[in-house]
Amino acid sequence: MNLRELADELGAELVGSDGEEEVAGIRGLESAAPGHISYVEDEARLRQAEDGPALALIAPAALRESVKPLLLVANPRLAYARALGLLGHAEGRLPAGVDASARVGADVVIEEGAAVGAYAVVGDGARIGRESQIHPLVVVGSGVTVGPECVIHPNVTLYDGVRLGARVIVHAGTVIGSAGFGYVQDGDRHVRIPHTGTVVVGDDVEIGANVTIDRGTTAATVIGEGTKIDNLVQVAHNVKVGRNCILAGQVGISGSVTLGDGVMMAGQAGIVDHVSVGDGARGAARAGIMSDVPSGTVVMGAPARPRGEQLRIDAAARRLPELLRLVRGLARRVADLEKRLRGPSD
Amino acid sequence: MNLRELADELGAELVGSDGEEEVAGIRGLESAAPGHISYVEDEARLRQAEDGPALALIAPAALRESVKPLLLVANPRLAYARALGLLGHAEGRLPAGVDASARVGADVVIEEGAAVGAYAVVGDGARIGRESQIHPLVVVGSGVTVGPECVIHPNVTLYDGVRLGARVIVHAGTVIGSAGFGYVQDGDRHVRIPHTGTVVVGDDVEIGANVTIDRGTTAATVIGEGTKIDNLVQVAHNVKVGRNCILAGQVGISGSVTLGDGVMMAGQAGIVDHVSVGDGARGAARAGIMSDVPSGTVVMGAPARPRGEQLRIDAAARRLPELLRLVRGLARRVADLEKRLRGPSD
Amino acid sequence: MNLRELADELGAELVGSDGEEEVAGIRGLESAAPGHISYVEDEARLRQAEDGPALALIAPAALRESVKPLLLVANPRLAYARALGLLGHAEGRLPAGVDASARVGADVVIEEGAAVGAYAVVGDGARIGRESQIHPLVVVGSGVTVGPECVIHPNVTLYDGVRLGARVIVHAGTVIGSAGFGYVQDGDRHVRIPHTGTVVVGDDVEIGANVTIDRGTTAATVIGEGTKIDNLVQVAHNVKVGRNCILAGQVGISGSVTLGDGVMMAGQAGIVDHVSVGDGARGAARAGIMSDVPSGTVVMGAPARPRGEQLRIDAAARRLPELLRLVRGLARRVADLEKRLRGPSD
Repeated sequence: MNLRELADELGAELVGSDGEEEVAGIRGLESAAPGHISYVEDEARLRQAEDGPALALIAPAALRESVKPLLLVANPRLAYARALGLLGHAEGRLPAGVDASARVGADVVIEEGAAVGAYAVVGDGARIGRESQIHPLVVVGSGVTVGPECVIHPNVTLYDGVRLGARVIVHAGTVIGSAGFGYVQDGDRHVRIPHTGTVVVGDDVEIGANVTIDRGTTAATVIGEGTKIDNLVQVAHNVKVGRNCILAGQVGISGSVTLGDGVMMAGQAGIVDHVSVGDGARGAARAGIMSDVPSGTVVMGAPARPRGEQLRIDAAARRLPELLRLVRGLARRVADLEKRLRGPSD
Repeated sequence: MNLRELADELGAELVGSDGEEEVAGIRGLESAAPGHISYVEDEARLRQAEDGPALALIAPAALRESVKPLLLVANPRLAYARALGLLGHAEGRLPAGVDASARVGADVVIEEGAAVGAYAVVGDGARIGRESQIHPLVVVGSGVTVGPECVIHPNVTLYDGVRLGARVIVHAGTVIGSAGFGYVQDGDRHVRIPHTGTVVVGDDVEIGANVTIDRGTTAATVIGEGTKIDNLVQVAHNVKVGRNCILAGQVGISGSVTLGDGVMMAGQAGIVDHVSVGDGARGAARAGIMSDVPSGTVVMGAPARPRGEQLRIDAAARRLPELLRLVRGLARRVADLEKRLRGPSD
Repeated sequence: MNLRELADELGAELVGSDGEEEVAGIRGLESAAPGHISYVEDEARLRQAEDGPALALIAPAALRESVKPLLLVANPRLAYARALGLLGHAEGRLPAGVDASARVGADVVIEEGAAVGAYAVVGDGARIGRESQIHPLVVVGSGVTVGPECVIHPNVTLYDGVRLGARVIVHAGTVIGSAGFGYVQDGDRHVRIPHTGTVVVGDDVEIGANVTIDRGTTAATVIGEGTKIDNLVQVAHNVKVGRNCILAGQVGISGSVTLGDGVMMAGQAGIVDHVSVGDGARGAARAGIMSDVPSGTVVMGAPARPRGEQLRIDAAARRLPELLRLVRGLARRVADLEKRLRGPSD
């Protein structure tokens, strides 16, 4: 592909070149080599990039002047993501069809173009959508529905009855639909509550590696469409996650929590059970959310508080040892004043 | 099953019905539909449920008056759990016997009624107890003992020599018996300490998905009978967990920790190495336990402190910025008083 | 093996015995039985061990006097680790060669003495080094390189193109090379950034169970040689981990973080994205690192601060409720003094 063809694919305006140069690949600014495309988001990064070896740069339309050819777009990061899809190493795809070694149960529907890899096990009554990829060593339980154009990476387990929408990506080692963690105490013993619900995952969801999502007690645990879940995240039984949410690495969502749309939880944040988090709310890294969070609020700390309040508390905490000394000094001085005025009045 | 038969199974007193109505299923109050049984634990929930579509309600014996038929029991949640087992969708069971594709080593004993699924790998000298289910793609290492009536879900790895008691449930992706994280520093390098111990899991233990339990250095890591472990929990080498403990999602237990009986650790709590936690003690969500916890104590925060103390500290922390302002104001006023009395006496 | 032969293997000085006694095994002090070797690091532990059943003790050279035979060495823990390797139960090794059930792609190189276990899947163009062990149910993606003398435990997934050095150990369920968690926001939607980078793991790295290490965006995520990673650790895209680092259980390293050499992070610690941690720095259990950490610094708490500062803050926090009371009392006394002097001057 040459620069002109890439610009056309991205809908970019090409300046500083007639577009004949061949594009060797696409890399981040730090690792770009001659022939590579990269991207910049502001003038400072553009000037820095001009000293580097990159062939040309994806840049915001406001930055027209450069010694390098520019591909001008409204959103450089978005264009970079698209260019990576065009120019990056294509992910391996399994050949369509069912591998001879895969174990496929009764009444399974495998739609056109779908692939089932080596030693995958597909239970009775499951349905694998058009063009979906079931990688080797995956278990698709009985009655599971996998929508069209999904990718299920190796060693994933989908328990019986789980339902995935279209274009869902599930990374290796993830478990969806295991029994929720619910017991009734009977004296000292914990008696298991059978979990007869399921998990429903919406369209365009991506789920990282070694994630766990438990099935609902009698209804469904729900992951809303467009939501992205990072590695090692725990989603407990009966949770409802809205659309287009972001759950970063090692986040933990306890049972029966409700997240609105566009909620973002940073790494290692946690939410206790039955809490409700409003649309567009955000939890900072390590936030420990113990109570409902209104829409649009950013919370930090544990117990989590609105960001401004928590920052003031953190700043004050840093001054705590000094404060202690100051108060002790004041106490001495007040006692001295009282003595001079012949003791406290009461 | 009709209401009368269900009442008999649960040992419940049926009031408000002759028991002839057919039961269509069992659901939580929010998702119950006509024909469904649900449950309530107090009068407020009962009044709310009376407006819903449920056919009948499991309720505590004190609540006899209702427009709906009631199944009166001593412990409604426990009866609900039992009814779910009777009425819910039965979990798929593998057919007894060893799947033709399973790889079974030498001197393996597979007791009556046990099942070994597709592409499972069972090492030399292992023993699979009566009626136990080894799901597809599970690895049962050499010399492993799985007791009777266990369920080992897909993609689980049991390292060599691990021993599971009776009725143990292990969810998908869990790893039991990996080498403990122990090294000796030799200059800059970390030299591995070979781990020749094992893991012993008691009867009636349930272990969630993608959990990790390391083997002991030379003795056993022990999980006491009746203990329940949620998803993504880490149990390090040489840990001893007592009976009937609860470890919620993403809890981390460091090496050589001892937990008594009936200990409960809420989500994302952690315990540093060599700490001892007494019988019935509890750690709140996110508790960071740095030192021994006496029996029956509830601890919170990080470093974890007794609940009352931590709540007072959290409340005071919220007032820290205000306290800083107050102290600064006091300092000015004291300086002013001192000036009026012609300076401090010293 | 007798005591004399063991002493020779360890380069130890044997005192208090002619070395003819047979060694039955090696155990920690608590679980040692007659005939067992154990080890002590100081005199107090030696006196305690003398009352126990152990046959002989590995001990530091300074402790020559004992009623038990001693194996005197410079570093008893290191000698103990070596003795465990000599005397402990040997880990099961797969027979060299490719199991008949393994699926091996085109142009795969399997070097001398390497083993590929049952139902393992090895993609096109992969290379398995000399004497390496690929356990059952492992996926080795296309173009992956596994160096010599590696051990890859069951149910591990190595995505396409990942590169492991020599003597790397990867425990069960771990995922290396899954796509990084990177999206571009486009209105409400999150558009995936294709990840075309890889993961490079240095020599002598050990990686625990159910760990996740994401591939870089266009360059490599790097784990430096000699680094040891515990269970359930998350290493995000573009991270560079130095040599001989220690990452304990459930640690989370966000995207583009750089760790120097010899960094140690204790359990459940986390680092936000793009932070740099200097050589030899340490994070305590649960440290939440939000900004760069200089070489050699020990940090604690969240947000993480230098250890001394955090300990002073924790100590002061414990006194916060008392401080509040003290300040309120002072405020009353100052008001009283002001009244007696007829009100504040301003």
